Amino acid sequence: MNAQSIGVFDSGIGGLTVVRSLIERLPNENIVYFGDTARVPYGPKSAQTIREYAAQDTDFLLKYDVKMIIVACNTVSAVALDVVQKHAKVPVLGVILPGTSMAVAATRKKRVGVIGTLTTIASNAYTNAIRQLDKSLAVVSRACPLFVPLVEEGWIDHPVTAMIAKEYLFPLKLEKVDTLILGCTHYPLLKNTIRSVMGDGLTLIDSGEAAAAEADTLLTERVLRNPSKHAGNVQFFLSDMPHKFAEIGERFLGRKLGKVRKVEAMSSGK
Amino acid sequence: MNAQSIGVFDSGIGGLTVVRSLIERLPNENIVYFGDTARVPYGPKSAQTIREYAAQDTDFLLKYDVKMIIVACNTVSAVALDVVQKHAKVPVLGVILPGTSMAVAATRKKRVGVIGTLTTIASNAYTNAIRQLDKSLAVVSRACPLFVPLVEEGWIDHPVTAMIAKEYLFPLKLEKVDTLILGCTHYPLLKNTIRSVMGDGLTLIDSGEAAAAEADTLLTERVLRNPSKHAGNVQFFLSDMPHKFAEIGERFLGRKLGKVRKVEAMSSGK
Repeated sequence: MNAQSIGVFDSGIGGLTVVRSLIERLPNENIVYFGDTARVPYGPKSAQTIREYAAQDTDFLLKYDVKMIIVACNTVSAVALDVVQKHAKVPVLGVILPGTSMAVAATRKKRVGVIGTLTTIASNAYTNAIRQLDKSLAVVSRACPLFVPLVEEGWIDHPVTAMIAKEYLFPLKLEKVDTLILGCTHYPLLKNTIRSVMGDGLTLIDSGEAAAAEADTLLTERVLRNPSKHAGNVQFFLSDMPHKFAEIGERFLGRKLGKVRKVEAMSSGK
Repeated sequence: MNAQSIGVFDSGIGGLTVVRSLIERLPNENIVYFGDTARVPYGPKSAQTIREYAAQDTDFLLKYDVKMIIVACNTVSAVALDVVQKHAKVPVLGVILPGTSMAVAATRKKRVGVIGTLTTIASNAYTNAIRQLDKSLAVVSRACPLFVPLVEEGWIDHPVTAMIAKEYLFPLKLEKVDTLILGCTHYPLLKNTIRSVMGDGLTLIDSGEAAAAEADTLLTERVLRNPSKHAGNVQFFLSDMPHKFAEIGERFLGRKLGKVRKVEAMSSGK
């Protein structure tokens, strides 16, 4: 059982930032990654459609006999975690609760900001989770729909990106949040820009890192850690091989992707 | 036969700019529109996946017994028009050839620019079509991946949009194109910005308008025009009802959408 893989899925290749955190934290674990690039992005879509897709993504990972599923996509974690939990009999981790716990522990002024896709922010999933942990916290949230296409265009350090960040983050700066949850897999790539816009003294919470830490704890508690001393095997599956996916994927993963397999059936949604 | 609808499909709601042109040109025609919002955008995806989706979109329209199909999506027109033509026994129009003919007729300096999504530009569909009509023309093309999310964010007159347009359009300005094909359904909304960046004397070719003109000619030639004197009936179908779709749709259509129906089966790709 313990040598079984950790399954990770995402709407596309953004979830590779979560895989990156997992590899750093749990280097000897095997990982199966599925990115639904044929239907990406999930962020602007309705909760109902995202729930259908999440069930299909889960079914795909279950075929690989995974010992645990990590929902790397914030949007899915926000509106469809229960669907994944219902489908899978293995432990399931989203990115919302780990990111929330870390943010609540980090804030000193009790003022937390959350940024994410339209659907993630509209779901209020982060705000509700924060309030459940501490009702006295002020929470300011903001959808940043252009951040994902900017990252995919590779405009990480582009002046336009800084301008857009200034506009999006203005309400959060105004409200003097001291801790900011990056509620989308793409946003860790904009850490420097976000930090320079928000100013000193800001704690950035990378939900993917938080989820990797939580996975570590959970596997240890349930005695599911892989005892192997060797680097784990990471398998990548995508439902579409889009233009420049290897180049963009590398940016997220922080290393070469190696072999990526296309899932034929998923691309037509069957 | 003549009272049958014209079928129009697109990857999302951008194709409503084509419906807008059709209503202006052929106000008494009935129209059935399908937007694949559950899998939008097609632009960044592979040709193979787009071809699968195009076949499914065509099948959907054929159920409504349409007399003609207009592929509003430039990306589909660029890489999958043959798939639609094979599936449908009715006349099929894409947006590439009508836009190309109009541009070739319009250019005085024989220098044409083309902008579109990554897949449309990578396909060279416009460049090849222009060269087939006139080998002596200089063609400069450029993918503008951020234009679609900027339009969907509603940043039509935002200074950031002008900055991005300046960067994307720089090579076209440098090459002194006098005619520019807007090779994506979203781009007509950025006409003012594009015109102010490119300067005076530029002819902008709206592929949707060109396709509506071509549809007019084709229906007349084949004696398929609807003889009704009343305004046609326009039906809208989407595979997902995303956040703010009515508001965004209105921006594209130039009027209220009215009733929009969700296609259940298409959202899971079956």
